[in-house]
Amino acid sequence: MFVPPTPTLRRDGNSLIVLDQTALPWRSEERRLATLEETAEAITAMRVRGAPLIGVVAAHGVALALAAETPDDAALDRALAVLRSTRPTAVNLAWALARMRTRLRPLPLAARREAAWAEAAAILDEDAATCAAIGAHGLALLRALPRRAGRTLRVMTHCNAGRLATAGAGTALAPIYAAHAAGIAIEVYVSETRPRNQGLLTAWELAAAGIDHILIADSAAGWLLARGEADVVIVGADRIAANGDTVNKVGTYLKALAARASGIPFHVAAPISSFDADAANGEAIPIEERAAEEVLAIAGLDSGGRPRRLRLAPENARAANPAFDITPAALVSSFITEHGAVTAARLGALPRGAATAIH
Amino acid sequence: MFVPPTPTLRRDGNSLIVLDQTALPWRSEERRLATLEETAEAITAMRVRGAPLIGVVAAHGVALALAAETPDDAALDRALAVLRSTRPTAVNLAWALARMRTRLRPLPLAARREAAWAEAAAILDEDAATCAAIGAHGLALLRALPRRAGRTLRVMTHCNAGRLATAGAGTALAPIYAAHAAGIAIEVYVSETRPRNQGLLTAWELAAAGIDHILIADSAAGWLLARGEADVVIVGADRIAANGDTVNKVGTYLKALAARASGIPFHVAAPISSFDADAANGEAIPIEERAAEEVLAIAGLDSGGRPRRLRLAPENARAANPAFDITPAALVSSFITEHGAVTAARLGALPRGAATAIH
Repeated sequence: MFVPPTPTLRRDGNSLIVLDQTALPWRSEERRLATLEETAEAITAMRVRGAPLIGVVAAHGVALALAAETPDDAALDRALAVLRSTRPTAVNLAWALARMRTRLRPLPLAARREAAWAEAAAILDEDAATCAAIGAHGLALLRALPRRAGRTLRVMTHCNAGRLATAGAGTALAPIYAAHAAGIAIEVYVSETRPRNQGLLTAWELAAAGIDHILIADSAAGWLLARGEADVVIVGADRIAANGDTVNKVGTYLKALAARASGIPFHVAAPISSFDADAANGEAIPIEERAAEEVLAIAGLDSGGRPRRLRLAPENARAANPAFDITPAALVSSFITEHGAVTAARLGALPRGAATAIH
Repeated sequence: MFVPPTPTLRRDGNSLIVLDQTALPWRSEERRLATLEETAEAITAMRVRGAPLIGVVAAHGVALALAAETPDDAALDRALAVLRSTRPTAVNLAWALARMRTRLRPLPLAARREAAWAEAAAILDEDAATCAAIGAHGLALLRALPRRAGRTLRVMTHCNAGRLATAGAGTALAPIYAAHAAGIAIEVYVSETRPRNQGLLTAWELAAAGIDHILIADSAAGWLLARGEADVVIVGADRIAANGDTVNKVGTYLKALAARASGIPFHVAAPISSFDADAANGEAIPIEERAAEEVLAIAGLDSGGRPRRLRLAPENARAANPAFDITPAALVSSFITEHGAVTAARLGALPRGAATAIH
């Protein structure tokens, strides 16, 4: 099995070492998080990203905060509040924080520090196991796809829902790693994922694993699906409502529309911690609007091939930058979870997912 | 009426001066085209782009070629062949070249040079008039849209089908310029249009005209349309089949799917010269595959905010880069032409469009 060049997160005494994903794919660079504030900044600035990984990092952030001061209820609540406010959409964050609170609140102060590190480590270990289970269930779906004999299986994905988004083999990419390990010839259409280019993270980790991949502009997905160039689409999720409406990286909805129009299966791979039992449907889920700067400050190449950072004229410089969109449940062929793959109609049979409220 | 800061094309004796669009929006830079080969290169490298403008430039390229040598049939045919091979998809190119051939072939050699310049100038003038007519017909459609009182009209477009794509006010943008001139409060969602970022050209020309606009990542279009943030989508076309299937910049199809899913009108604005009477449907139209380099050589920002040109590892560096996609006729609300706006079912009533064969 592939071992990532650098783990996404590890503990080093009373601090965390994370792989700074804003430096990828140009440099593989680690960053030490020594305070609660540094941990919150790392999540907000997307140095660590991906719904499951955000949950794992936040859990460690609680442990780190309690290590730095008297671990009383006030300190715990402050850590939970600071971390909860970093990003609004991925529910795994709220789930991990709620779990930390449930575990730590009943304990005497003297037991809290060790218990916090232990619980964070358990969340990390469970995430890796969850990814492996998602990979196994997804592999079964891939094996069942109708395919022309001898043809390479082609999977399209969006954003990065891989090793870099989790503490394990990923969610959407886990079935791909599993298929590759099983000797299935596979290649992956990797969508650039503007404006933050997380597709490059996916290309980076697939390249490290020796898995063939084809980078495409986000806009090319419709044409490729219409031509039947991909056998299946698999994406991750930042939050899934009780009815199956799926909030994921902006652009997911367009791929789901195109897959449906061309009769291509569209699967959402996500752990139970990404399901929000409190959200009846997608309308109940907040969609993060990120800084206009991410869209406006475009690095383009000029005619001489030199990179230029563009800033549009201030008097007209406006941008809309929703980080996520909602894919209606009706467009999702199945949800691949650690408990198996189910359709939206069968979601109720799964173990209960995350609650969004910490308190 | 808005006067563009620099015309897209003008004649200067026996050469052409074009606005080099690969330098925009960073620099407004003119380029002199003195030979047939330089003209062909300017089209291939997208220094000039946009289906109508390509036709206008190609017509001038014929005049320029004949000015440089004995204007016999061999020279004419060579010029037509060289220019025809520059880009495969936009039919206006073939249309303009066929028109030049029809005009010049019957003439004695002594009359051909002047006639070539005159015919190219006529094609340019007619393109400007065509844009104005498209603007007027499109304005009528915009006025007829149901709108909440006092609310700014919001139009979404894709790529650049404006002044920079024509010799006039554009195709998709012509109704927007007309609405602005008529005092209608209007703003435009401008899609980035990766990998060549032609959305920045649209932002550049809208900024010059003082028209409010909002830049978005291509992937954000689905979410914005689902939320009803745009009242209408208007795009241009590179070639329209007899049944109304529309070939336009890649990503157009995804916007059409999303507009249909949300009940938002989706219009295609194009001159008759963009209609290919010889193509029964979209399947008959060649889709240009451009260099993988356009997708792979990504200029991104590193963590320090410095632009970096990324080249993925050669052993895994692959990309697919279709420049266009096909929007099925059924997704198009109407085609806005210089002869009025019609549905796909009524396309047969329009004057006959371009023929793709030059010979």
